[in-house]
Amino acid sequence: MGAKVEHTWFKWREDALEVLDQRYLPFKEKWHTLRTERQVAWAIKNMVLRGAPAIGIAAAFGFVLGVRRKVRLDKIKQILLNTRPTAVNLANAISRMEKAWRMRRDIEEEAISIWSEDFKACEMMGKHGAELIPPNSKVLTICNTGSLATGGWGTAFSALKVAYDQGKKIHVIACETRPFLQGARLTVWELKKFGIPFTLICDSAAAFLISKGEIACVFTGADRITGRGFVANKVGTLSLACACQIFKVPFYVVAPTTTIDVKEEIPIEERDGEEVRMISGKRIVAKDTPVRNPAFDITPPHLITYIITEKGISKPSEI
Amino acid sequence: MGAKVEHTWFKWREDALEVLDQRYLPFKEKWHTLRTERQVAWAIKNMVLRGAPAIGIAAAFGFVLGVRRKVRLDKIKQILLNTRPTAVNLANAISRMEKAWRMRRDIEEEAISIWSEDFKACEMMGKHGAELIPPNSKVLTICNTGSLATGGWGTAFSALKVAYDQGKKIHVIACETRPFLQGARLTVWELKKFGIPFTLICDSAAAFLISKGEIACVFTGADRITGRGFVANKVGTLSLACACQIFKVPFYVVAPTTTIDVKEEIPIEERDGEEVRMISGKRIVAKDTPVRNPAFDITPPHLITYIITEKGISKPSEI
Repeated sequence: MGAKVEHTWFKWREDALEVLDQRYLPFKEKWHTLRTERQVAWAIKNMVLRGAPAIGIAAAFGFVLGVRRKVRLDKIKQILLNTRPTAVNLANAISRMEKAWRMRRDIEEEAISIWSEDFKACEMMGKHGAELIPPNSKVLTICNTGSLATGGWGTAFSALKVAYDQGKKIHVIACETRPFLQGARLTVWELKKFGIPFTLICDSAAAFLISKGEIACVFTGADRITGRGFVANKVGTLSLACACQIFKVPFYVVAPTTTIDVKEEIPIEERDGEEVRMISGKRIVAKDTPVRNPAFDITPPHLITYIITEKGISKPSEI
Repeated sequence: MGAKVEHTWFKWREDALEVLDQRYLPFKEKWHTLRTERQVAWAIKNMVLRGAPAIGIAAAFGFVLGVRRKVRLDKIKQILLNTRPTAVNLANAISRMEKAWRMRRDIEEEAISIWSEDFKACEMMGKHGAELIPPNSKVLTICNTGSLATGGWGTAFSALKVAYDQGKKIHVIACETRPFLQGARLTVWELKKFGIPFTLICDSAAAFLISKGEIACVFTGADRITGRGFVANKVGTLSLACACQIFKVPFYVVAPTTTIDVKEEIPIEERDGEEVRMISGKRIVAKDTPVRNPAFDITPPHLITYIITEKGISKPSEI
């Protein structure tokens, strides 16, 4: 698997994880070589890489690096878990790595399995999700859910890619996704790479296009899905779900089953206000301007049409 | 009136309109001296000044400058009307100026009347709107609807200011308002000036705060209100109205009666994509990235709790 899958955001080098710094995309491809669990934690916390499945995969390799350096297990766990609290894939990956370590299994193989299972899950999510996309339609999405966010072709993005590859002639409406602009910088980059027709909009313009009947359906990813079908995802997702509900447009969430968490409590990460006060390094308001910057929001199940995992298409109540 | 009212965005100098270039706020106060109807049109079109009532006032003075320069009436009208199509105040102001001119009344006085009537309307809108704001509450708003957008204290902003002046201890949540960031740059600037406590958020975070029950009510302005109660306002307004409807939070629109138009057809201005591709002069995506940039959206009456004008508080169906 390791040799077979070429990936865009990371390369595993046995003694190091090389990662593409997504903060500089689309204008610059800068790579970092991460040799310790601390360096992996730094990359996750500072959004050098992001996306719930990608964070889980990176943390698994961070675990391998920590163990090889003979760092204490509780220290490795603490460092990696104290990065981003909302995505459950991170906690799931670390608990799986710990189990493998306790059972004295090959932990490098375990990390590679986490990655290859996500790769396969992306393929299946793409196939299931594409069934819901009508031909000749505009599909709206938020944030980046493609190969930069996962170990494969993506979650929501995978559905768009499969539909496009099936010749369905889709047109993607990509929300820019403030504050970090993952839609404008990353999703646009991937859409261009695959030649999928698209239009970029401000997040605030989505409801208008939905209200005009231009959008066939909305596809988003998820950072955590609870047992009762509440979905934590990139802030702005809830806004799309509300508009879809009002104007009767299907709202679909695509995520691997590793994103599902039995607990109902979802910690919402509040990030540094400077992400709002500055855009792509340019200051838009004074440094002392009071800001709130929740990185995620929670969409209740009654606003979600279907949740798509690698296992199929379900109603939120069936999760 | 002319001498009594000190205003922040313009000064009428008899032979010229001096305007503050809002595109450089909050970091720089740059003024332009506009001596012709063409220069006024340039300032409106390029958002040197913006806000539906402010555009109407500027156009009225532009009309005066054009007549003094002996430009043909249809030419003056064409130049001023071909700037921004959505706000009806512009068309209303020009038709009123034309009527005064045809009746051989003093057109400078007529322009000053348009301004002073808007000033008084702002006071009344503030009083009526403030009645709806509970003490110790968080009120969310979008775009800039203050003294920079009107001939007085503002529309929605006036309600916030009056409530604050009444000692109601409110806290304003200001949406940054992409793409032009009128909330982050202008509303924050005005809130600071008056000492009103506030927090700046990304537009996409509004629904999350609304869903958490943190927001007592949402106040927005309007660029055009139809006879059936449809409201065209800054893009992003509809998104807030949808979230308010889903989570049962009151949604209020504040605008002078000059914003009401009997026609049901609302032209929605689509602005240059570079406003989306660049933020405050910094490029975020390549110049060839396909973009849609509607400047406004339309909120249907069933999503609006009340419309507040200088005449009082009405249901959208009563407009």
